[in-house]
Amino acid sequence: MAEASSKQDLIVGVDLGGTKVLAGVFSPQLKRLSSAKLTTKAERGYTAVVERIARCVRDAVDEADFSLKQVRAIGIGAPGAINPESGEVIFAPNLRWKDAPLKKDLEKMLDVPVFIENDCNVCALGVHAVELGGRPRHMLGIFVGTGIGGGLIINGELYGGFNRTAGEIGHMVLEVGGPKCGCGNRGCFEALASRTAIFRRLTEAVKEGQKTVLTEMLGPGQELTDLKSGDLRKAMRKGDKLVGKVIEDAAEYTGIAVANLINILNPEVIVLGGGVLDALADEMMAIIIGTARDYAMAGTDKGIEIIASKLGDEAGITGSAVLARRGMKS
Amino acid sequence: MAEASSKQDLIVGVDLGGTKVLAGVFSPQLKRLSSAKLTTKAERGYTAVVERIARCVRDAVDEADFSLKQVRAIGIGAPGAINPESGEVIFAPNLRWKDAPLKKDLEKMLDVPVFIENDCNVCALGVHAVELGGRPRHMLGIFVGTGIGGGLIINGELYGGFNRTAGEIGHMVLEVGGPKCGCGNRGCFEALASRTAIFRRLTEAVKEGQKTVLTEMLGPGQELTDLKSGDLRKAMRKGDKLVGKVIEDAAEYTGIAVANLINILNPEVIVLGGGVLDALADEMMAIIIGTARDYAMAGTDKGIEIIASKLGDEAGITGSAVLARRGMKS
Repeated sequence: MAEASSKQDLIVGVDLGGTKVLAGVFSPQLKRLSSAKLTTKAERGYTAVVERIARCVRDAVDEADFSLKQVRAIGIGAPGAINPESGEVIFAPNLRWKDAPLKKDLEKMLDVPVFIENDCNVCALGVHAVELGGRPRHMLGIFVGTGIGGGLIINGELYGGFNRTAGEIGHMVLEVGGPKCGCGNRGCFEALASRTAIFRRLTEAVKEGQKTVLTEMLGPGQELTDLKSGDLRKAMRKGDKLVGKVIEDAAEYTGIAVANLINILNPEVIVLGGGVLDALADEMMAIIIGTARDYAMAGTDKGIEIIASKLGDEAGITGSAVLARRGMKS
Repeated sequence: MAEASSKQDLIVGVDLGGTKVLAGVFSPQLKRLSSAKLTTKAERGYTAVVERIARCVRDAVDEADFSLKQVRAIGIGAPGAINPESGEVIFAPNLRWKDAPLKKDLEKMLDVPVFIENDCNVCALGVHAVELGGRPRHMLGIFVGTGIGGGLIINGELYGGFNRTAGEIGHMVLEVGGPKCGCGNRGCFEALASRTAIFRRLTEAVKEGQKTVLTEMLGPGQELTDLKSGDLRKAMRKGDKLVGKVIEDAAEYTGIAVANLINILNPEVIVLGGGVLDALADEMMAIIIGTARDYAMAGTDKGIEIIASKLGDEAGITGSAVLARRGMKS
């Protein structure tokens, strides 16, 4: 091991998802040095997943030829309601966790300070600190994937509100009486524009006899819902009209949601990310921006930037590293 | 004039509306000592209205047997987009003003420092500082009258966002493709639950042949839209089914809007005020609260208070006094 690197104060950022765990090792200047990936295997239960997170962290550190002793702090973005003070995952339906003392258990296992936040908050933090250099005073991150979540930066700081659940923009009702959402309500933004909503509409259309090249892209035994956002992009580039229309509608709903959030919060920058946007930014952003500016109250969107994040699926580990760096300074 | 009062540092709060101007004289402890009221007469043009504001301030001060020399600061809540730093009313459609240097002109006329803010922001400030004793860290005020506006307190401070237009919650789309709004869009909260929306629905129903006691309450030559929120309460208390149904629907839409704002902002307290709520709180609040808690994501509304303001039409002058007191300290 090189002398120079042994003096480094490394940071590890972890992106804990329902299907996979990503860990990245970062320099104190937030340069990514290595990464590792494991499946989550949530079905094996809490303790098994915590062990897998620890293994993923060790793998990433080893990959860059470092030792865990050189790691000053670990940040984790986890899906669900988080209490950053106690370091508990209060509720994470994707992981089937409730009141899980993740910080305490990981610290015991790795002997390194651990900091936890909601995954969308962490992504917003990463975009703000690394992609935008900490510049915007007020920023909103909108992450469109299987679900839709948001993260809010107000006065340069992550804003959580009273119960630390602020930014649940996926459950903003946009269409009273609209399609049913996983949360039990109808017409939520998530029920209109998430990957789940897009594939639900496509499945319904195919049942009604409409044609799409997507059905030709299915492997044996696969359903439409097994496809990915990248497959939607491929279909659009082949001129698939059904997919084009469904994506256009999702982009319009997203634009209306952005306008609502400009009217309510008036952030300086709105950044869109997540799997759907990462794959379809070229197809969706012009519609999202046009619709948002059309729907925002006259004058309220002046000078406000609406952009797509370039961090892609690195947003989570990057933001978690920012969280860890922030935590170890305080 | 008594010796004691001549030493007081008085504050004047002004509520500038499209139809009337209210001014209140307050003690440094924000006790209201007197008030005065004038019609705005916006049709006479900017200079005439500024003179009327000055007259209303002088009337209120004289009413309490004080002199203008004892007034340390004047706060004004004005409808529209305001630049508090420059003291300009950027755009106020109700007054037909654009880039009006209100602070400068009033200071010239009265020789007292003047502070200006948006009317809904000022009302939120008044509710926060006086009604709630400055307690909540994060608070949202929702004011339902002819239109619908909001004011946001974040970390104990008025939050304006990038263009100082945050809190335009009346133009949050709740029902894509819904009824047309004055802003040009469709399905805004304001187009579904404001006094204007309520009377539009009542007028349509009467045209379709539905019955209501409201038509019997009309004076000669009066239209339904000439009635007030208090008349709606009277009709409901007489058991009017049409009015009951329309108010119930407006309360449900308001509850959905409150849930959206809990999901997005997670404030500690949500306070509802404005003409419609002042008149119909007993009829609407239970529905608003029930709907909001039903639609808010599980757990996000825990401990969050949803209450009706008791300040009534004093919210504006009270908040303007708070604004002035805050301004003269800084």
